[in-house]
Amino acid sequence: MNCGDERGLSLKAILAIADGMADRPIEELGWKTPLEAAVKPNLDRIAKKGVCGIIDPIAPGIPPGSDTATLAMLGYDPWKVYSGRGALEAVGSGVEVLPGDVAFRCNFATVNNDLVVLDRRAGRIANEDATKLAASLQRIRLPTSLNVKFLFKSTIQHRAILVLHGPKLSSAISDSDPETTRKKVLEVKPFERSFEAERTAQIVNMLTKEFHKVLEAHPVNKQRTKRKLPVANMILCRGAGGIPKMPTLQERYDIKPACIAAVSLIRGVCEVVGMDLINVRGATGTPQTDYMAKAKAAVRALKTHDFVLLHVKATDVASHDGNVKEKIEIVEKIDKMLGYVLDNVDPGFTYIAVTADHTTSSTTRNHEGDPVPVAIIGSGVRRDDVTEYGERTCAEGGLNRIRGMDLMPTLMSLIGKAKKFGA
Amino acid sequence: MNCGDERGLSLKAILAIADGMADRPIEELGWKTPLEAAVKPNLDRIAKKGVCGIIDPIAPGIPPGSDTATLAMLGYDPWKVYSGRGALEAVGSGVEVLPGDVAFRCNFATVNNDLVVLDRRAGRIANEDATKLAASLQRIRLPTSLNVKFLFKSTIQHRAILVLHGPKLSSAISDSDPETTRKKVLEVKPFERSFEAERTAQIVNMLTKEFHKVLEAHPVNKQRTKRKLPVANMILCRGAGGIPKMPTLQERYDIKPACIAAVSLIRGVCEVVGMDLINVRGATGTPQTDYMAKAKAAVRALKTHDFVLLHVKATDVASHDGNVKEKIEIVEKIDKMLGYVLDNVDPGFTYIAVTADHTTSSTTRNHEGDPVPVAIIGSGVRRDDVTEYGERTCAEGGLNRIRGMDLMPTLMSLIGKAKKFGA
Repeated sequence: MNCGDERGLSLKAILAIADGMADRPIEELGWKTPLEAAVKPNLDRIAKKGVCGIIDPIAPGIPPGSDTATLAMLGYDPWKVYSGRGALEAVGSGVEVLPGDVAFRCNFATVNNDLVVLDRRAGRIANEDATKLAASLQRIRLPTSLNVKFLFKSTIQHRAILVLHGPKLSSAISDSDPETTRKKVLEVKPFERSFEAERTAQIVNMLTKEFHKVLEAHPVNKQRTKRKLPVANMILCRGAGGIPKMPTLQERYDIKPACIAAVSLIRGVCEVVGMDLINVRGATGTPQTDYMAKAKAAVRALKTHDFVLLHVKATDVASHDGNVKEKIEIVEKIDKMLGYVLDNVDPGFTYIAVTADHTTSSTTRNHEGDPVPVAIIGSGVRRDDVTEYGERTCAEGGLNRIRGMDLMPTLMSLIGKAKKFGA
Repeated sequence: MNCGDERGLSLKAILAIADGMADRPIEELGWKTPLEAAVKPNLDRIAKKGVCGIIDPIAPGIPPGSDTATLAMLGYDPWKVYSGRGALEAVGSGVEVLPGDVAFRCNFATVNNDLVVLDRRAGRIANEDATKLAASLQRIRLPTSLNVKFLFKSTIQHRAILVLHGPKLSSAISDSDPETTRKKVLEVKPFERSFEAERTAQIVNMLTKEFHKVLEAHPVNKQRTKRKLPVANMILCRGAGGIPKMPTLQERYDIKPACIAAVSLIRGVCEVVGMDLINVRGATGTPQTDYMAKAKAAVRALKTHDFVLLHVKATDVASHDGNVKEKIEIVEKIDKMLGYVLDNVDPGFTYIAVTADHTTSSTTRNHEGDPVPVAIIGSGVRRDDVTEYGERTCAEGGLNRIRGMDLMPTLMSLIGKAKKFGA
């Protein structure tokens, strides 16, 4: 095992993931991608001095979610461990989800008397109103015979989390959220004929009815009507999921890992794999996030941790908005962020990998199944001839094409933490 | 199926594996690898006239053992068939291990009265002493009620092999070897609550006690004490394993395969997959091995066999010693060895593949998870633009990046021995 040098310094790794940074060539950029069009001397420096390649986050052509892609890039097989976004987002919002619990992503919504959805976000209800409503919903009691407790928490605007806790629950159930307006709230149904799934579906349907009753009569909604705001008289649930049982990164690699990420979904992923969550003032998960504060936090975290995930959401936000100009500007800010990291770590003992968790096309405004670029810099990497960081230049690099799941073992092997298989 | 030509000549393949030949760029070589720094006209000739690529012996980032990597490169899934080094090394040392047997790698060691290990190698005891001690240990009889026989054989210096033979044995047990000094000999424990594992653990503990008793009283050890040599009064066991059940190469591909390898671990792998083991005078598994004798043996073997594995250990030895200069010299000797092969086979009917079983870094002195280069020369391969054999040049080759398990099917396809899947 490689344990650093005589001075007792140990090897460290930073994995920087820019959410949805990879893109497709765009006509208005002369068929360049936003990444290729950006001025990014530090990304190019990493590509030039490092080893490059492309990564299929999940597998070629499979458009990943940020949750499955991040799980994969942390070395977990998402086909095996992923069980829905609900639980991961709940965990990332600071809600405890235990093995066996079932968690949902919820929306405050507006429905008419026939339970037809008029507004899936209840007019993007303000946090203040949502919090008051949530407090009332939490006071509902399920029949004691069920032996199930629930936790309902509003997070941001119309977004909320529901967690069911008790024996014999199952996440093999459908959504109540029709995911569109002008449709009725759906009855939740079991995906399988098991006692657990049938019972869990019943509980969610029961809660949905109770929630509706309490919300209809709630003073906050009376006020909203007066203020001509859409009432938040329904809770829509989707993405039932549990917490997968899996070994932590510490158990797998004997490392102390930390995560710098603002969005709750990524924080949830990092928490379930046992990473320390580092809070950074000014890190918001939006294009206005404080990039330099994140860079400084990453450099600091490296003093106490072996492995730091540095996640930036903003590139994905701009892509979903189809805002090419903003995406280029964000890449350039990420580049400066990485410049600070490069200038403030010991290059002899630190490996830095930069990638995207998936391609988000600014044209289709969707996650796409195209591979993403990666570059790894650090002592002894097999430097190749690539001189620019980009989707196409990196494809000519020495790593060739790997899977998301291969990235973590590759980094762990570089910092001497990979376990040998065989003798 | 390709059956050679009208003259009745059939196609043949040589797979040359240089153990641990791949490396990382090294500062003292101007950030070249030893392979890149070596003068190797024949390796370059193979790369230039052939098709090149890189191989992950197991998977990206996973540091392989030579046993798992060789199994993979012979086309077997090591995750499925590998069950510990003990049995493979036993087989390679000429000890018969049958399905159901459990084999261990053992050390003659020195312990004090409290069974604390003082020297794990009993002063690297000479073969002569070890052989005498082993003969006495072999005379021990296990209670007939157990219905188990054992074979104990000393191999080189302090190294020995123990094989248990009988019904209801299991390799799911721990080691007695603490793998360090100043610790007590460990009690062997079952890894699972099965009759087989519990019984096997008991048998090993019983034998350990009996071995200790016989060794303590042994005249050889009385002599050693007089000669001020550490006594060999304990046998430490580790790596319990059985022989995996798997089809032979002959069964899989209808070929007659042969192996030229000096080290017992590789010979064991080759024997369990049904290869003929060819003994070569002067082949030692050390840097002083007779490279040309191996080359001549490989060319000869090709007259009677379809497929010859030509394995050289020396590159790995130099890497583990961190001896960069020696590693370069060994690469140059391997190059000459391959030159002889190239000059003495019929190029129209022979395919030669050259690779390493894993990367061994001369800096970390460990097996690492980096990929290894490969080049394949022979009639009709898709020759690419690579002109030099090396870790980075081959990464630009036409094979791109494949897994160890893909190599054998690739070679079998070239010599017309791959079975079609589908119609």
